[in-house]
Amino acid sequence: MTAALSHYLQEKIQLVEQNLLPALEREGVPPRLYESMAYSLAAGGKRLRPVLVLAVLEAFGKPLEWGMPYAVALEMIHTYSLIHDDLPAMDDDDLRRGKPTNHKVYGEATAILAGDALLTRAFAHIAEAYLQHPAVTAETTVKLIAELGLRAGATGMVGGQMADIEGEGRSLSLDELEYIHRHKTGDLLLAALLGGGYLAQATETQIAALAKYGTCIGLAFQIKDDILNVEGDAALMGKAVGSDEQRQKATYPALLGLQEAKDRLASLVAEAKSALVQAGIAAQSLTQLADYVKDRQK
Amino acid sequence: MTAALSHYLQEKIQLVEQNLLPALEREGVPPRLYESMAYSLAAGGKRLRPVLVLAVLEAFGKPLEWGMPYAVALEMIHTYSLIHDDLPAMDDDDLRRGKPTNHKVYGEATAILAGDALLTRAFAHIAEAYLQHPAVTAETTVKLIAELGLRAGATGMVGGQMADIEGEGRSLSLDELEYIHRHKTGDLLLAALLGGGYLAQATETQIAALAKYGTCIGLAFQIKDDILNVEGDAALMGKAVGSDEQRQKATYPALLGLQEAKDRLASLVAEAKSALVQAGIAAQSLTQLADYVKDRQK
Repeated sequence: MTAALSHYLQEKIQLVEQNLLPALEREGVPPRLYESMAYSLAAGGKRLRPVLVLAVLEAFGKPLEWGMPYAVALEMIHTYSLIHDDLPAMDDDDLRRGKPTNHKVYGEATAILAGDALLTRAFAHIAEAYLQHPAVTAETTVKLIAELGLRAGATGMVGGQMADIEGEGRSLSLDELEYIHRHKTGDLLLAALLGGGYLAQATETQIAALAKYGTCIGLAFQIKDDILNVEGDAALMGKAVGSDEQRQKATYPALLGLQEAKDRLASLVAEAKSALVQAGIAAQSLTQLADYVKDRQK
Repeated sequence: MTAALSHYLQEKIQLVEQNLLPALEREGVPPRLYESMAYSLAAGGKRLRPVLVLAVLEAFGKPLEWGMPYAVALEMIHTYSLIHDDLPAMDDDDLRRGKPTNHKVYGEATAILAGDALLTRAFAHIAEAYLQHPAVTAETTVKLIAELGLRAGATGMVGGQMADIEGEGRSLSLDELEYIHRHKTGDLLLAALLGGGYLAQATETQIAALAKYGTCIGLAFQIKDDILNVEGDAALMGKAVGSDEQRQKATYPALLGLQEAKDRLASLVAEAKSALVQAGIAAQSLTQLADYVKDRQK
């Protein structure tokens, strides 16, 4: 990662993190439920989805505050999905970002409810932000909620997770693998880009370029995740390496071989950047973020 | 139940049920996930929340179509909460409305995901309905989403379920019991009334009366549930009777005695009706629905 990007990410992540916990309600919430929600929301991570929202607004020269409720909502949804994915009935993971998973600390029932409450809060937070301090129009607010719901639900992230679970233990075609990746990880990244575009009042051509960029880096992101699971540094990542192979999980390296997976990763990132260039919105932050997806070590 | 109310409910339930499954996305959804969502959404039930939305619109002489997306969203959220509450890590129930619970049919992982997807779809459906056929303003749409999120989340229904789980196996005060009931069941009924009021462009005084009505029948509804668990007809209800006592669950009959619980139920329903009368919005459907909450046999 370049020093400039590192600085950029640090600054944006800090901004996002300042806004995460204050976006949760606390009064009137059973303390254990609040703690469980806050535990996972504050557990760190790349904050890639909210950072992408802010990066788009910046690329269009719009105030970052416009995007903060949506950025925070995306991170809430990402967080809830990790809590539920880690449950014993799903991936049954004990560690996440180097810390015990939510259900390991608070128990399964609380973890399920904390996930439900984070998901619910994401939508409420966007709507409330409009009602309390309308920085964007009600129309844009509704559009953001529709987009987020589309990408996070049965046709999006949840559908991808379902396909992923159904695919475990059997061999998948490249199409099936692509469906999983496109939805499980890609759709929420796409929602970040599209939402950022709506907030920035981008033209249709610009929205299409953001969608292309989002689709490409979304897939690239998952391929990189697969590659890291093969050859990453467990200490850096705060989670085990080699678990996909142990579970005989279908991954890009498993299906294509490690080198071809890396080639595909590189060409997707190039494609993402080229889409921005063609639409004349190739801000340095967005092109560097695409490189980061490829080069990250965790 | 009077013949008039029975006819009224039948008509409204039919209208709601015609709109439930078409509100789910099917294309691009893994078939097992869609089936699991549809299984629980189509599993019947009183449909009380959506019917209340329509009843408010009718009381104000507004088109019922205005409220259908919101009504359907409420039923989706109610349905997801039942799926998650029935999970082994929560109440561990095998039967719901006389049918095997979702996880008994589709497994735990799918049941968790189906719940997540229904919850997500609820918000997306309201937003999409506005974008596709704007029957109400974007402003009202945002207000509905904020209200639904508030009542369904950590300060509302999910908070109530958390408190309910934490309270199991120990003796609760009447305040604690009231917190649970007010949120676990009451808040979503309140959301139906308030949302109906926003949709009908009710005045602030009218909204306050609807809130009072909603709070009273919400609590009444739960007290009646507790009473039915003591002396209801298992065959009629499609679920076991006496389970609360077996689990030593805090209930109104357990805390107050059966007769005082019944008295409290009657006075809450009277209070609900009187609030409507004072605000001049005592439509027959709403007053009869309050009686129904008290007199229902399942």
